[in-house]
Amino acid sequence: MLRLGPLAAAGRLLPAGPRLEPPRPAGGRVSFLRCWPPRLPGPVGDGRPLSQQVRAAANSAGGSGGRGLALKTPKGTRDHPPAHVALRDHLLAAVVACFKRHGAAAIDTPVLELRLQTPPLRAPVLPIPSFQWLSSCSERAVVFAMATMQVPFARYLAMNKITNMKRYHVAKVYRRDNPATTRGRYREFYQCDFDIAGQCDPMIPDAECLKIVHEILSDLQLGDFLIKVNDRRILNGVFAICGVPESKFITTCSTVDKLDKVPWEEVKSEMVGEKGLSPEAADYIGEYVQLHGGLDLIERLLQDPKLSQNKLAKEGLGDMKLLFEYLTLFGITGQISFDLSLARGLDYYTGVIFEAVLLQQENDHVEEPVSVGSVAGGGRYDGLVGMFDPKGRKVPCVGVSIGIERIFSILEQRVKAEMLYKKDPKLLKQLQYCEDTGIPLAAIVGEQELTDGVVKLRDVARREEVDIPREKLVDEIRRRLEP
Amino acid sequence: MLRLGPLAAAGRLLPAGPRLEPPRPAGGRVSFLRCWPPRLPGPVGDGRPLSQQVRAAANSAGGSGGRGLALKTPKGTRDHPPAHVALRDHLLAAVVACFKRHGAAAIDTPVLELRLQTPPLRAPVLPIPSFQWLSSCSERAVVFAMATMQVPFARYLAMNKITNMKRYHVAKVYRRDNPATTRGRYREFYQCDFDIAGQCDPMIPDAECLKIVHEILSDLQLGDFLIKVNDRRILNGVFAICGVPESKFITTCSTVDKLDKVPWEEVKSEMVGEKGLSPEAADYIGEYVQLHGGLDLIERLLQDPKLSQNKLAKEGLGDMKLLFEYLTLFGITGQISFDLSLARGLDYYTGVIFEAVLLQQENDHVEEPVSVGSVAGGGRYDGLVGMFDPKGRKVPCVGVSIGIERIFSILEQRVKAEMLYKKDPKLLKQLQYCEDTGIPLAAIVGEQELTDGVVKLRDVARREEVDIPREKLVDEIRRRLEP
Repeated sequence: MLRLGPLAAAGRLLPAGPRLEPPRPAGGRVSFLRCWPPRLPGPVGDGRPLSQQVRAAANSAGGSGGRGLALKTPKGTRDHPPAHVALRDHLLAAVVACFKRHGAAAIDTPVLELRLQTPPLRAPVLPIPSFQWLSSCSERAVVFAMATMQVPFARYLAMNKITNMKRYHVAKVYRRDNPATTRGRYREFYQCDFDIAGQCDPMIPDAECLKIVHEILSDLQLGDFLIKVNDRRILNGVFAICGVPESKFITTCSTVDKLDKVPWEEVKSEMVGEKGLSPEAADYIGEYVQLHGGLDLIERLLQDPKLSQNKLAKEGLGDMKLLFEYLTLFGITGQISFDLSLARGLDYYTGVIFEAVLLQQENDHVEEPVSVGSVAGGGRYDGLVGMFDPKGRKVPCVGVSIGIERIFSILEQRVKAEMLYKKDPKLLKQLQYCEDTGIPLAAIVGEQELTDGVVKLRDVARREEVDIPREKLVDEIRRRLEP
Repeated sequence: MLRLGPLAAAGRLLPAGPRLEPPRPAGGRVSFLRCWPPRLPGPVGDGRPLSQQVRAAANSAGGSGGRGLALKTPKGTRDHPPAHVALRDHLLAAVVACFKRHGAAAIDTPVLELRLQTPPLRAPVLPIPSFQWLSSCSERAVVFAMATMQVPFARYLAMNKITNMKRYHVAKVYRRDNPATTRGRYREFYQCDFDIAGQCDPMIPDAECLKIVHEILSDLQLGDFLIKVNDRRILNGVFAICGVPESKFITTCSTVDKLDKVPWEEVKSEMVGEKGLSPEAADYIGEYVQLHGGLDLIERLLQDPKLSQNKLAKEGLGDMKLLFEYLTLFGITGQISFDLSLARGLDYYTGVIFEAVLLQQENDHVEEPVSVGSVAGGGRYDGLVGMFDPKGRKVPCVGVSIGIERIFSILEQRVKAEMLYKKDPKLLKQLQYCEDTGIPLAAIVGEQELTDGVVKLRDVARREEVDIPREKLVDEIRRRLEP
């Protein structure tokens, strides 16, 4: 639940305000621009003073504002007004505090990564999830904005020959797919990554990543959640024993990954129709990937006559068992499910993968249920650093990304709160603001309230105030805001 | 001076380590790519699994690492290892604390701004300082990464019809000119902006901006500094009475701006040779733009028979006098100089402009004097919001940017300090690290030291420790590190 600041805050529950909807592209689906090789670069503008150019552009172009300068943000991006930034800073502080508790140090890398081109110049191959911008940094290179910070981290490790590091990184990242802004899915968004690089005893850093997700989601009091866990080696083992050729592992993986959104029948028909698997193979896969459970399921699969014969699957299941033993020691297995349908989109995962989802609570006082998808995810990627290293030296890595934007949009939908941004605001003025703008409740925290461990809750319309113990504040606000 | 954290820190004064030098572009000077209109977009990669594409790219391309994946950051950008991020966070916290003290609220805007294109598609006119990336957001738009946050701020105000706001914004911004990384000049860098929008009584917000620069540079204890102040209207008035045609104001402005780097004779020869002014006009300009002083100079110019006849100059001088009266009340005129050579590069300033420079201290214990240029700058831009507004409605604005990266590189050059990133590090292990890596001094702060208001300073080589009062720590470290 949202924590209210020490000054003064006012909670209200209004329908979500109008959101700026970026324009849809003409052709529906959008791909990368491929302007390669570049045309000859020319000078900036036309040499006239910039203010004249602005005026000329404004007169000649017929943009939305009638003056050619776009009065909106690029597709899939948004501005953050002060109340957003304050809430986001609160979330980030909680996440970073957890990362630091676990001994991680922060690094920062450029928003763009470089990919060298060899002559003859050609359209860039994109080996890694990225959002392409073209820039003039040199004729032999293109730059990419990363959709994941694990790739820059791997490059950083390889470049600095670091074989051991526990780091976190909070930054904006970029992705190219079509934004779904109402579900908190943007093209530009903050991400909070925590990764552990280095040779460790099996499953210890993996377990720590899951512990961190558990801590953060608990700290933020987002309600019930579930962390699904799987292992790429188990999935590949399943595919192998079901007769899927190795060349179709990746594509079958991405089909399986849809099981959390669509029923099995649809997934099966995609496997058979689009991916060219036999109906028998698909059915066989279906028997496995619909399984989920805990240690008991792991034990059962370790006894599975076919799966236990597959080397990869056996390794994966053995490690999964070890992982669950650590998670039991951490006391967090209640929120963890070994789920064979979890596949994760990224190709570079090599072992454990996981994803945290929020569970819709019944009796939740929101306007309508909001499906927000996963709020954290990650896994083991032991091969990525080696791809960057000239000699292919491997550095095993495991890490997790916290989807702060989605968490943000959940909190935003649940309780809207704002505060006046004044160092020393007059109380009367703040209450006047509440009355003027229809804010139903004001939470007042002065020195006396701090001493007493209470918050004064004011019914703005009735002008009645009552002291509420801090720990009961959220429940009391919810109760009063019930329709 | 660098403030040492409450855990444990070790100071050392070593020559600056090797810096990653990004590759120079083939042609020396770099301009924008102009890939407009775009070629037809194609699908990502070649349809093979990504890991296979990586391997193929690695084999076919001959990049620096021999595998085609670039083991360096794009030109003019850099990674920030943990010690950097910790120092930067310390700086940012000090700057943001000052902004908040002055009642500003944070906003955040996308890294890219949109400029609509009208058919027929044409090369974009760049009305505002920007770093161009091309993206596929739509065929009618290009996106720019901003080199200043005042432009997104103006767009934000116009878009949301806000006529009154005091905001700060801390973010990465981008500029396209050739990086000079040794002087802390990068293509990607953090900037801290504070701006006040709205109709106010004259010079009050302008004075607050200067007060903020003064507070921040004092808080950070960067040594002596000077804030140069001028007014675009005064400069334009000078140009007018010296016979410069209005069409040459901007270009003359940018020549004058070089006076802080090159002697007057060079500036004059550029005015006459490149800009086409008569030698007499140039000499006449020279008489004015070499002036600097305080209230006395303002009074003198207000009496200047020619300048006082120019309407713009008279307005500017009147406001400058009022500004200095406020600055006198703030008690900060000692670090402020009315300097007629200050012109500032941006075209959209309309009134007061200012720039803060650090003064080289004698007896400064650095390896060699480092010229870092300006560390803060800003001014009044009353026309920018109106350029975005469909009806041209103006919102007067004044603001300041703090050049956090330059300040960072000064601190980095002066005293290098690092700390172990452990929640609960063993002291012995830390001291061992100091001995192993040749760190000469370790500052130890435990509970006893906190209580006593001292820091235990350890000579690592001699293994001798002595308590130093906190306020004398910096001087003591400097003394001990003297060559």
